[in-house]
Amino acid sequence: MAIEPDLAWLRDVEHLRALPQRYSRAIDERNIDAVATLFHPDGVVDGAFGLLPVPDYITNLRTAERVFDRSMHVLGDPLIDLLPNDDTGRMDTYAVVYQLRPEGSTEADLVLGMRYVDEVVRHHGNWVISHRKTTTLWRRPWPG
Amino acid sequence: MAIEPDLAWLRDVEHLRALPQRYSRAIDERNIDAVATLFHPDGVVDGAFGLLPVPDYITNLRTAERVFDRSMHVLGDPLIDLLPNDDTGRMDTYAVVYQLRPEGSTEADLVLGMRYVDEVVRHHGNWVISHRKTTTLWRRPWPG
Amino acid sequence: MAIEPDLAWLRDVEHLRALPQRYSRAIDERNIDAVATLFHPDGVVDGAFGLLPVPDYITNLRTAERVFDRSMHVLGDPLIDLLPNDDTGRMDTYAVVYQLRPEGSTEADLVLGMRYVDEVVRHHGNWVISHRKTTTLWRRPWPG
Repeated sequence: MAIEPDLAWLRDVEHLRALPQRYSRAIDERNIDAVATLFHPDGVVDGAFGLLPVPDYITNLRTAERVFDRSMHVLGDPLIDLLPNDDTGRMDTYAVVYQLRPEGSTEADLVLGMRYVDEVVRHHGNWVISHRKTTTLWRRPWPG
Repeated sequence: MAIEPDLAWLRDVEHLRALPQRYSRAIDERNIDAVATLFHPDGVVDGAFGLLPVPDYITNLRTAERVFDRSMHVLGDPLIDLLPNDDTGRMDTYAVVYQLRPEGSTEADLVLGMRYVDEVVRHHGNWVISHRKTTTLWRRPWPG
Repeated sequence: MAIEPDLAWLRDVEHLRALPQRYSRAIDERNIDAVATLFHPDGVVDGAFGLLPVPDYITNLRTAERVFDRSMHVLGDPLIDLLPNDDTGRMDTYAVVYQLRPEGSTEADLVLGMRYVDEVVRHHGNWVISHRKTTTLWRRPWPG
């Protein structure tokens, strides 16, 4: 049964809003299986590893050398562009990412200002990211 | 009169989303009466003071020695788990907490990465926190 | 055709929630035309430039000397006070504002804890800010 368009839109917006929060918890817990569920299998991620198909991005997450002890991805509310009755949308999310050294380390933590611009699609009844463009707006300390 | 289940769910989600924001303003303004209204009187808080019944937690907030001049609890959007028509739910909220020295102090501020996992219940028509588990993910500078 | 009051309220809340996020992107991209669309032309902004009518505030944004290389306004979820069927509301938003030096600078970045308290009104079918009170809760490093 069809539901009222505004109501469907609001429900979709809530599900979209949860996506970046699920991402941050999954990535910070290094639960890569959980990260994988948030992306479309035919999608693309343009980020720290360059432009990669989602399966390669996920593989890289599993195998990348672990430089920092832990991370915390603190995300602002996404700016959501979604038309009623649409199956694709766009999200734009600010993040401050803390990449943390183990306790007692004398090396500096890394703090990054990031922006995720995501194309999202409905896939098997769930919203997933089909294209992610990650931009590093700043990082401290300076590279090099 | 019963309202449409999806609509009731969306309204509940909005009220839940406001809870952590009300908490941050109340705690930063040291308005402990306002903090108390956000918790169930029979609830439990597992945080900086250990595992405490809500009335003892509130008492500790009132009487704890004031080490820092002021605080700012900057909270991300909560990840909300709530089923339609349910009277209990779960919220998972990331926070960066700034504990600030008075102006001119030569001592370092304290910055903490926190995670609040809250069980929430409907109580006299309002949503309140019945169980809060606070985890400190990191703190800078290092303790000790 | 009138829509159900709860549904209209939820839709309004979503549009209000997007306002601070639109502000942060516009101001960080120095897109002052986009900032201007978020304020009521007869409104008032009480902020870094003092208490100013919106047109003067916008002019100041266009002409103010550029001290920092770039900014990032990371905003928490706004606490939204809006009654059903109302055309005015109130939003209270926490922000951490990063004012960043150009790469390689030896001067410190400026980080500010801010709070925006906004009166919002429906204007030509859109929600805009009619009165903004900006408070700087803290700044690092210390001024002076």
